[in-house]
Amino acid sequence: MAQNDWKIAACLNGQSPVDSKGAPMHEAPVEEWSRVFEDVASEGFKYLELSDGWLKPSLLTSARKKEFLQAAEQTGIKIPSVHIQRASVIQPGLEKENLAYAHEAMEAAAELGVEVFSTGLHQPLTDAQKRAFWFWTAQGAKDPRNDPQTWKKAVSSIRELGKHAESLGMKMSLELYEDTYLGTAQSAVDFIQDVNLPNVGLNPDVGNLIRLHRPVEDWRMLYEMTLPYATYWHLKNYQRDEAPDRSWCVSLPSTLRDGIINYREVTQRAIELGYDGVFVCEHYGGDVLGVTGENARYLTKLLDRAKSRVES
Amino acid sequence: MAQNDWKIAACLNGQSPVDSKGAPMHEAPVEEWSRVFEDVASEGFKYLELSDGWLKPSLLTSARKKEFLQAAEQTGIKIPSVHIQRASVIQPGLEKENLAYAHEAMEAAAELGVEVFSTGLHQPLTDAQKRAFWFWTAQGAKDPRNDPQTWKKAVSSIRELGKHAESLGMKMSLELYEDTYLGTAQSAVDFIQDVNLPNVGLNPDVGNLIRLHRPVEDWRMLYEMTLPYATYWHLKNYQRDEAPDRSWCVSLPSTLRDGIINYREVTQRAIELGYDGVFVCEHYGGDVLGVTGENARYLTKLLDRAKSRVES
Amino acid sequence: MAQNDWKIAACLNGQSPVDSKGAPMHEAPVEEWSRVFEDVASEGFKYLELSDGWLKPSLLTSARKKEFLQAAEQTGIKIPSVHIQRASVIQPGLEKENLAYAHEAMEAAAELGVEVFSTGLHQPLTDAQKRAFWFWTAQGAKDPRNDPQTWKKAVSSIRELGKHAESLGMKMSLELYEDTYLGTAQSAVDFIQDVNLPNVGLNPDVGNLIRLHRPVEDWRMLYEMTLPYATYWHLKNYQRDEAPDRSWCVSLPSTLRDGIINYREVTQRAIELGYDGVFVCEHYGGDVLGVTGENARYLTKLLDRAKSRVES
Repeated sequence: MAQNDWKIAACLNGQSPVDSKGAPMHEAPVEEWSRVFEDVASEGFKYLELSDGWLKPSLLTSARKKEFLQAAEQTGIKIPSVHIQRASVIQPGLEKENLAYAHEAMEAAAELGVEVFSTGLHQPLTDAQKRAFWFWTAQGAKDPRNDPQTWKKAVSSIRELGKHAESLGMKMSLELYEDTYLGTAQSAVDFIQDVNLPNVGLNPDVGNLIRLHRPVEDWRMLYEMTLPYATYWHLKNYQRDEAPDRSWCVSLPSTLRDGIINYREVTQRAIELGYDGVFVCEHYGGDVLGVTGENARYLTKLLDRAKSRVES
Repeated sequence: MAQNDWKIAACLNGQSPVDSKGAPMHEAPVEEWSRVFEDVASEGFKYLELSDGWLKPSLLTSARKKEFLQAAEQTGIKIPSVHIQRASVIQPGLEKENLAYAHEAMEAAAELGVEVFSTGLHQPLTDAQKRAFWFWTAQGAKDPRNDPQTWKKAVSSIRELGKHAESLGMKMSLELYEDTYLGTAQSAVDFIQDVNLPNVGLNPDVGNLIRLHRPVEDWRMLYEMTLPYATYWHLKNYQRDEAPDRSWCVSLPSTLRDGIINYREVTQRAIELGYDGVFVCEHYGGDVLGVTGENARYLTKLLDRAKSRVES
Repeated sequence: MAQNDWKIAACLNGQSPVDSKGAPMHEAPVEEWSRVFEDVASEGFKYLELSDGWLKPSLLTSARKKEFLQAAEQTGIKIPSVHIQRASVIQPGLEKENLAYAHEAMEAAAELGVEVFSTGLHQPLTDAQKRAFWFWTAQGAKDPRNDPQTWKKAVSSIRELGKHAESLGMKMSLELYEDTYLGTAQSAVDFIQDVNLPNVGLNPDVGNLIRLHRPVEDWRMLYEMTLPYATYWHLKNYQRDEAPDRSWCVSLPSTLRDGIINYREVTQRAIELGYDGVFVCEHYGGDVLGVTGENARYLTKLLDRAKSRVES
């Protein structure tokens, strides 16, 4: 089997947003960045998603951006994507501020030479989410339903960002996330069709949805509907149990292989559809790097197999 | 350590019962069968349980059966067993029909040259089971308790099938399954003793029982009582938690190694008892093939070890 | 990377406390001991924690102790520690008896040449714990709160044992355990400071606490406070989910990598703090040896990495 260079990227969920002296990572010395890159590389990763939950790229000067990329390169790490989270362009009262931030982050992303600008419509964690053992078990912010005004506003702001991305030669991607306009398969497809730009698509992060403590849409249907629009992809998995009367739902983070989503089937479908973007191994809790390293090896096997089946 | 050729078989739980054009698998072209065989072989399996949940062998003509076996052989796969499920010989109203179907399936199994005909007394999923997230969390059909008439009917129909199997040189096996006459250790042993045929035994599929959302029998006792009667074996495992007051039970599919059943101990016991039949790696949810492939490698290690301990 | 000989020890949770003829393990023939040592060695372990849940070392004569050590040595197994459990020196009515037993066990441990004597303040399982699916889901014995008399008694008895250990050239370690004076981070630190002996420290068995069916302290804080006092270490992990209103908690035994504690981070911290003691891989349920063997391989990787980072 030919060696394929899949763009399988590590996430930075397990990494501290402050350095060993308590400074935010954008102010950290190069050595502290290098430590993280070495960590990620030690698990076999060659790609890394730069998330603003770890370091805000817009806060780096051009000189610092170069240092950042050099440090990454020296450890064999490439940065194919920037991910901006919980800064929704329709967050009540912060619409303009968040839109401006997204534009800035996009400029920074372009300077870093990434191919995808990833974001979504999810908002900062509510107090209930911060108190919860896992944030997804508590209720977060909700985009208003049956509110054509807000929907239109969301579409137009995302279009504006999408055109900006286009002008910079980047793809843009919007993450599936509960209770946002990207919270169900149908709503996400409707939204992306309304945005209607060739470079803007979905991030079918189905793991966000199947972990909820409530009845959830079927992962197979979710992927079937959203994969055709994928421009980026967060992959994670969960095990799950439910009382038959739905009085409780339990979900637990798992490896990609051991959860309820069949990634063998889903990656096959993605390759058939011609998906050739980034695969981000996401995970929450415990040794994120250890689990996602295992996931990357598993995913490589699945993708090699899917490719050879599609080609045969 | 000598290389032992354990008969470790893949199950087909993860495979679609229709081909890429929507036709039932018994009507599928050989290439579609081969794809499944290649899939299974890619995870290292040399054996495969043919389940009628995937393809009904009685619907294949003799010519098609030959094609089927040739396709399997070309990918290095052998078929040691046919498994007929949810067609109980005491399903109310369908006793005769299901018995006739079992006879037909057995004839087909013999033509395919298998060594074991596997079945049970479980019935089709109820509507509640179909709606449930995992079918085993909802109530299924129950064999009537304290009903000597139905028990006798079950015993006599299974005896009839057992004699048929004997005449074809096959073993027959009955799966432990909740709320059937094979639903507790004692009832299963009583039943098999009443059937009283040398070629008919149990399939100690203890995983079926320990995953229930209710107090369950101890897996160690279940195996201790039923392994001596084993003629076939579905192996799967679950993690489990319970409220101490039993107000809820949670169970999650796991790898063989990571669940509550200690398969190191249980396989040791089986080898001590002289079990030399098929080991079917079963699993539900997610990447069944990936998980069972891992399980097969784990199981091989355990069996090699158990054999060398018994021989030493 | 240099090959480091970390003292990673197997636990004996999965092993029967009686031999194949039903005799207690201290009366078992050498061959039966050897079987257990071979078992443990087959998963790559070179160290073993001798727990009195499996064999009470104080019941071995000196001659038998030599046989025991010889059998271990012949299978490549060393015994760095003796662990005495559920014999609290403040168990109501058994204070003197348990203290005397601890002294005896300590003498036996010294004769076996171990470096650590490990114990705690937890008491025998209650009936509710024995009935529960997992013992930790039911309420166990509680050390009396706001009872300076009992606290002092505990401190003085442990000091007495600690001095005994010191005279024998051994370290001593006390296990974190819920509802004892070692049941929260602060209480455990207070207790060990009151004991105030250089050779007596904590066993930061945080797994004992994060598996409870009630709100639990944060594992990161627990380790941050207790690791500086570590003289021994039981490592195990759990996955966990909670209702956001805390009406239920679920916890499931997991591999070290796959649970909520980030052992990559925690082992890094331990090495930074200069921890150079024994690492005991503990686990409950299922194939304990299989899971802990995997954990030992994972842990070796983490420790090698942590050491090279600290040295660089």
